[in-house]
Amino acid sequence: MRITVWNENAHETRGDEVVLGHYPRGIHAAIAEGLAASFAAEGDVIRTATLQEPEHGLTEEVLADTDVLLWWGHIAHAQVADEVVERVHRHVLAGMGLLVLHSGHYSKIFQRLLGSTASLLWRNEGERELVWTIDHTHPITEGVPDPIVIPRQEMYGEPFDVPVPDELVFVSSFAGGEVFRSGVTYTRGLGRIFYFSPGDQEYPVYHQPEIQRVLANGVRWAAPTQPRRDQVAIHKPEAGWFEA
Amino acid sequence: MRITVWNENAHETRGDEVVLGHYPRGIHAAIAEGLAASFAAEGDVIRTATLQEPEHGLTEEVLADTDVLLWWGHIAHAQVADEVVERVHRHVLAGMGLLVLHSGHYSKIFQRLLGSTASLLWRNEGERELVWTIDHTHPITEGVPDPIVIPRQEMYGEPFDVPVPDELVFVSSFAGGEVFRSGVTYTRGLGRIFYFSPGDQEYPVYHQPEIQRVLANGVRWAAPTQPRRDQVAIHKPEAGWFEA
Amino acid sequence: MRITVWNENAHETRGDEVVLGHYPRGIHAAIAEGLAASFAAEGDVIRTATLQEPEHGLTEEVLADTDVLLWWGHIAHAQVADEVVERVHRHVLAGMGLLVLHSGHYSKIFQRLLGSTASLLWRNEGERELVWTIDHTHPITEGVPDPIVIPRQEMYGEPFDVPVPDELVFVSSFAGGEVFRSGVTYTRGLGRIFYFSPGDQEYPVYHQPEIQRVLANGVRWAAPTQPRRDQVAIHKPEAGWFEA
Amino acid sequence: MRITVWNENAHETRGDEVVLGHYPRGIHAAIAEGLAASFAAEGDVIRTATLQEPEHGLTEEVLADTDVLLWWGHIAHAQVADEVVERVHRHVLAGMGLLVLHSGHYSKIFQRLLGSTASLLWRNEGERELVWTIDHTHPITEGVPDPIVIPRQEMYGEPFDVPVPDELVFVSSFAGGEVFRSGVTYTRGLGRIFYFSPGDQEYPVYHQPEIQRVLANGVRWAAPTQPRRDQVAIHKPEAGWFEA
Repeated sequence: MRITVWNENAHETRGDEVVLGHYPRGIHAAIAEGLAASFAAEGDVIRTATLQEPEHGLTEEVLADTDVLLWWGHIAHAQVADEVVERVHRHVLAGMGLLVLHSGHYSKIFQRLLGSTASLLWRNEGERELVWTIDHTHPITEGVPDPIVIPRQEMYGEPFDVPVPDELVFVSSFAGGEVFRSGVTYTRGLGRIFYFSPGDQEYPVYHQPEIQRVLANGVRWAAPTQPRRDQVAIHKPEAGWFEA
Repeated sequence: MRITVWNENAHETRGDEVVLGHYPRGIHAAIAEGLAASFAAEGDVIRTATLQEPEHGLTEEVLADTDVLLWWGHIAHAQVADEVVERVHRHVLAGMGLLVLHSGHYSKIFQRLLGSTASLLWRNEGERELVWTIDHTHPITEGVPDPIVIPRQEMYGEPFDVPVPDELVFVSSFAGGEVFRSGVTYTRGLGRIFYFSPGDQEYPVYHQPEIQRVLANGVRWAAPTQPRRDQVAIHKPEAGWFEA
Repeated sequence: MRITVWNENAHETRGDEVVLGHYPRGIHAAIAEGLAASFAAEGDVIRTATLQEPEHGLTEEVLADTDVLLWWGHIAHAQVADEVVERVHRHVLAGMGLLVLHSGHYSKIFQRLLGSTASLLWRNEGERELVWTIDHTHPITEGVPDPIVIPRQEMYGEPFDVPVPDELVFVSSFAGGEVFRSGVTYTRGLGRIFYFSPGDQEYPVYHQPEIQRVLANGVRWAAPTQPRRDQVAIHKPEAGWFEA
Repeated sequence: MRITVWNENAHETRGDEVVLGHYPRGIHAAIAEGLAASFAAEGDVIRTATLQEPEHGLTEEVLADTDVLLWWGHIAHAQVADEVVERVHRHVLAGMGLLVLHSGHYSKIFQRLLGSTASLLWRNEGERELVWTIDHTHPITEGVPDPIVIPRQEMYGEPFDVPVPDELVFVSSFAGGEVFRSGVTYTRGLGRIFYFSPGDQEYPVYHQPEIQRVLANGVRWAAPTQPRRDQVAIHKPEAGWFEA
């Protein structure tokens, strides 16, 4: 498994003390470390990439060598180059898996793949979030407690302006009473996409083992089972099957 | 019901004799005429608009006064201004219904809404298409024969690179053996979208009463049931419901 | 519209004072009264039927004359005759709409249609329920506030052992933190089914105008758009379409 | 992987020469042999069971030791004991995978799980069937040619009276022009169900390597990823999460 964890790395480079308190080496490092135990076989590779690198660290070469990309962004969506977004989009359609995390709902790549705004309710009061499993047969829920209890989180609530998901894996409630489709899957082209909402920068969510488990399961689920190819095949058959 | 039928009107303005033979006043006129009997109540309006008009005939004013837009395009997708595409996109998210017809699968607006390429197989040999009803409870199938027989049509076949539809209404077979999801629905934001594949410019498909019936049913299905509003509501609730 | 509201009428005939306090003429009467304003056109009929009547009031004649059946049951599921369940099942497959309410999740007819247990979490502490709209394009949500606030209700929570719904219309949260897919749709054969969970006998839920609105919208949605017929057509075509 | 292949074994015990010509040791033996190469690891077990054995070979012990059950039946559905059907149903809800094959669409267990009739069109003229892949990201399609060509098969056509599938994997066309959702998935309780229509007893379909590949992929997909448990958990939580 070849995994790339991308982070806009903006709160961190600004020196936000709350964020650096939880994630001194950056959110990307924490996510990568949380995956390390699950992907420690020979040949497994876990990379990180950030907005500040050339081409945001997402060159053609890196993407071609990535089975699953994780995306964390929040305040710097607009700084992501359209050219990089198109490149990621092309690789997803060709089969690369994608995990979009928390405020990544507003990323250019997620909006590009969904076709809607992905807007939602929010309120940051450090409320308790309960992440309930809805689809108990889904491999992403394997070994995950039901519910996951997150002591303090930003509230994300419905209406969540996304297309009807292919699969509804998790629904969260918040102490304030709101609900949210916190784990949903989509496919686009040959690529599998998993959006998972827990993970605000102000709370140490990515240090929770059960959250790390969801991300590891999500990576396995999103990984391509077939060689990447130039989107779903297109050809113009000269003769019909009937005549054959 | 306020309906706008849009056509790139490119084959017609080029003077293509086959197309003009079937549709002397343009494909848009034929589609509009096919809807006329179904929407003849007081207040019903059926307009047409074409690529050649200022802003392609799709001004803010026209779209704000349109419940359902029908889209026919084929060889001039690239000539549609991005600004108009964004305007249509915004109105769909706000609740305007959209019917995308035949080669409109490659239109900018359809790709924008779906997030994938919408590529497909094709072969133009004038084959018989059978349009089978899959969802017999769907209002779009009301009064529609099963199957619809189209004596001569361009073949559109799987793989059709679209997201999993919300509803699979029709599946077609072609004499050559291919199959195609020829009637599928989506929602994006508050808008309802129906893609229906029959309708190549080289064959008189839009003169078939059963095709006209599908389009009329589709318009009724896609029409908004609620006042248009600026996308799904977004607000930041200061206090949770719990405290209330 | 021809509507039949069915109630096991068991709490009422036992003389349960709490239930009779809220619903002196029975829950069926309250539901029927709540629908009356919405279905007052000429030809509209709203009937009630109960367990205690011959054939539970659901004779072949009554069902053949019913567009949409509403089902409320709780403590007397086992007393419903299998023969009547099969009759209702047959009519649903042939096109009759069905609304299953609250504890009707454990009714024989709902289990028969779903193929799973429909088990769920529950706790009766009179908690506040918030019913959030998920599908903002769905006609069942038309004119319904988001959320509906039910001051006191029995808690129904996930896991809800039902098949993946065709459409997820509402999700509820409870003061205690649980979530529930409180409004879901299915089709079976030619019949449309809407399950809506609010409505415990110990609380005056069916007197809330917004709940009455959901039920009226649900009836309209579930009503057949086509003549009832003996299930989806079955025939053995002697010759293929190709030869025709 | 512990696999049990069940066959009514009725054509074979009657001495049907066409069937025995293709499958001299029975259809169950051919299916089991087709899976052997894919499940040859230590601990893998492939059993067969038939109608004629005590309890049809599907005792509590056998089912408790089965990860995935394959079901082939045609002319003897009515002879399957209701008690065995209930036992299989209970194990599916608890997590056992189930593959229903061809004319098994009319089996008691499939109807019990779906809640509808599963009726369909049919015509046995030995027509060419093309099995097209619809969901190119689905693991059941891995390594499967698109389309699979079956030179001679019984035609199964729409309308197929089944609930909307969770996933539409394959759609077939037949030389006569009909189409059919030939590969569909469902979940019920904790169990995963895959229906795959190719496989009539009069044609040597189960000897085709690409059909064997689909079945092996289907078994892997349907296998439980979690310990079997007594249906989706049911409990009555005394206290809400909020108070915790």
